[in-house]
Amino acid sequence: MTPVSPLSPPHDVEIVEVGPRDGFQPIGPFIPTSAKIEFVRRLKATGLRRVEIGSFVSAAALPQMADTPAVLDAVRGEPGLLAQVLVPTERRGREAVAARAPMIAYVLSVSPAHNRNNVRRSPEDSAADYERLLAGIPDETPVRLNLATAFDCPFDGRVEPAAVMVLLDRLVPLRAGVEICLCDTTGRAVPDQMRRLFGEATARFPGVRHWAMHAHDTYGLGLANVFAAYEEGVRVFDGAFAGLGGCPFAPGATGNVASEDLAWMFERMGVSTGIDVAALADLADEAAALPGAQPGGRARAVLRARPDACAA
Amino acid sequence: MTPVSPLSPPHDVEIVEVGPRDGFQPIGPFIPTSAKIEFVRRLKATGLRRVEIGSFVSAAALPQMADTPAVLDAVRGEPGLLAQVLVPTERRGREAVAARAPMIAYVLSVSPAHNRNNVRRSPEDSAADYERLLAGIPDETPVRLNLATAFDCPFDGRVEPAAVMVLLDRLVPLRAGVEICLCDTTGRAVPDQMRRLFGEATARFPGVRHWAMHAHDTYGLGLANVFAAYEEGVRVFDGAFAGLGGCPFAPGATGNVASEDLAWMFERMGVSTGIDVAALADLADEAAALPGAQPGGRARAVLRARPDACAA
Repeated sequence: MTPVSPLSPPHDVEIVEVGPRDGFQPIGPFIPTSAKIEFVRRLKATGLRRVEIGSFVSAAALPQMADTPAVLDAVRGEPGLLAQVLVPTERRGREAVAARAPMIAYVLSVSPAHNRNNVRRSPEDSAADYERLLAGIPDETPVRLNLATAFDCPFDGRVEPAAVMVLLDRLVPLRAGVEICLCDTTGRAVPDQMRRLFGEATARFPGVRHWAMHAHDTYGLGLANVFAAYEEGVRVFDGAFAGLGGCPFAPGATGNVASEDLAWMFERMGVSTGIDVAALADLADEAAALPGAQPGGRARAVLRARPDACAA
Repeated sequence: MTPVSPLSPPHDVEIVEVGPRDGFQPIGPFIPTSAKIEFVRRLKATGLRRVEIGSFVSAAALPQMADTPAVLDAVRGEPGLLAQVLVPTERRGREAVAARAPMIAYVLSVSPAHNRNNVRRSPEDSAADYERLLAGIPDETPVRLNLATAFDCPFDGRVEPAAVMVLLDRLVPLRAGVEICLCDTTGRAVPDQMRRLFGEATARFPGVRHWAMHAHDTYGLGLANVFAAYEEGVRVFDGAFAGLGGCPFAPGATGNVASEDLAWMFERMGVSTGIDVAALADLADEAAALPGAQPGGRARAVLRARPDACAA
C-alpha cells in the first residue's frame, strides 16, 4: 500500500470529496453498500486523494450511514486513498478509531441551537467531548475539527466571528497538527465573511498549518466563497460530486459545492488539484442519477455538452 | 418624468438587468411585444433602475429582437427607468439615438474570430465604427462600451489582457464619461483573471469613472467573478433575471449570472442594490416559465421554498 501523508496535500490545493457522506446522507432510498464502495473507489481513480466515506452516527437518525463500517472495511486499504470518517461525539470517535479509520473528522456546531439539534448538547459540552476524544486516541491519528455553522445557522441566523474564536481558543491548543475546517453549513455565507473570519483565524492561530473550508452552494455562492477563502490562504476545500447534499425539506436548498466545479475553477486558474475533471464529471453524472438525489453544480452539464470545454 | 442621472448609480452597486436583451435573445418562440413591455415595467418596479430592453440588430439574424423599437417606444418615458439599447454598429447606433434610446451600449469583441462571427469585420474596423458613431451623436447621449470576449473566446480560447488594452488605449480617450464594460461572454473567466484585467485597466485609465462587468454563469463562476471584480473597484454589474441567456446549441451553457443571485449576495454583504430581492425572484420565476427559456440561478429556488430565507 502506498503510504499517504494525511496532512500534506500533494497538489496546490486539496479537494476533499464529501459526497459519500454529506451528499448521500439526505438521500432517502438506501444506496447499496457495494454501490457506495464502488463510488469511493472510482472517486479515488479520478485523482481525489481524500474521501469522506461516511459517518459513525445513529443509524436510526441517519439510516443511509448505517453501513459506514462496512464501507470503511472495504476501502481502508485502497492504495493512495485517505478515507475520512465523520464523528459527532467522543464515543463515535473512539468507535471510528477502533475500526481503524485512517482519518477522523470531529464535528461540532458553533451555534447552540444547531448543536443542540444535532447532538442534544451545548457547543461547550461538545468541546469537552472533543477534548476527551483527543485524550483517548493515539497521537498519530490524523484528525480534522469541523466547526459547523461557523458563518450562519439555520435557526439563529448569522454567527459572529467572536463565537468561533472562543471555541478555537479552547480547542486549537489541545493538539498540534489538527486540520481546522470552518463550515458554511447553510450556504448563506458571503465572500466578505470568508475574508473576515479566515483572516482573523489565521492571524490568531499561526501555528495551525491546515485550514479547510466546507461550502454549500444554496445561493450559488459556493465558488465565490471558496475563492475568497483561497485568497486568505485556505488550501483544503470540501466538495461533493454532482453537488449532492440538498435538504429534502427545503427544495432548492442544494447541497455542497460541486467537486467538479471546484476542480474546474482551480485548474483553470492554474492551481493544481490532481483531479481529472472530465472523469469526475462523468462519475458525477452517475451520482446525479441516483434515485432520490438532488444534484447541483454547473460544470458537469457543460462538460457533457462540449467535451473539449475543459481545454484551456 | 423623474430625471435619471444615467451614470451615477443611486446605490452602492448598480445591477443592470440585461434579461430582456441577452436573456430573451436566444429564446426561440417569439415573446409578444406586450409581454416584453410588461416584463420591463415589472423589472423596474422591483427596484432595478437600468434595463437593457433589447438591441438594434438584424431582425433576420435575431428575430426575437425585431420589436425593440416598439418596446423602446413603450417604456422610454417610464419614470425612474433608464432604458439601455445594445448596438453592434455605427448605423444601428444612429438608429437607436434617432429612436431616442436613453442610453446605448456599443458592443465589439476583443477576439477577432468572435467579432467576425458577430458583425463580419475585425475588432479594429468595429473600433473605427465606434469612433464614427461617437462623432455622429450628441455629446450628452449616455454611452456604454461593451468589450465582449474580454477574457475568453468561444473560438480562440483565452484572451490576453494586452489585446484588451490595445482597444482601450484607442477607445477610452475618444470621449469622457463613457461606461466601460468588460464582458465574460463564455463564462469561462476565473476570478484571478478578473483581478488581473480590472486591476490593470483601472490603473491604466484612472479617468474612467464607470467600470462594469458582464458575467455568464456557465461553470457556476458568475458570483465568484463578480466578487473579484467588485474588490477591484467595479460597481456596475450585468445580470439577467432567472439567469436567462443559455445558448440553445450548448445544453448546460447557461446564461447570464442571475440578477436575483447578484442582488442577494450584495444585500447580504450589506452592499445596497435598491432591489426588492423577493419581488425580483418572483418575477424571475415567471420568466423561467417562458416557453423555450433555459433558466439558471440559485437564489430563486431557495427564496421560493423559504420565504424568510432572505432575512439576514
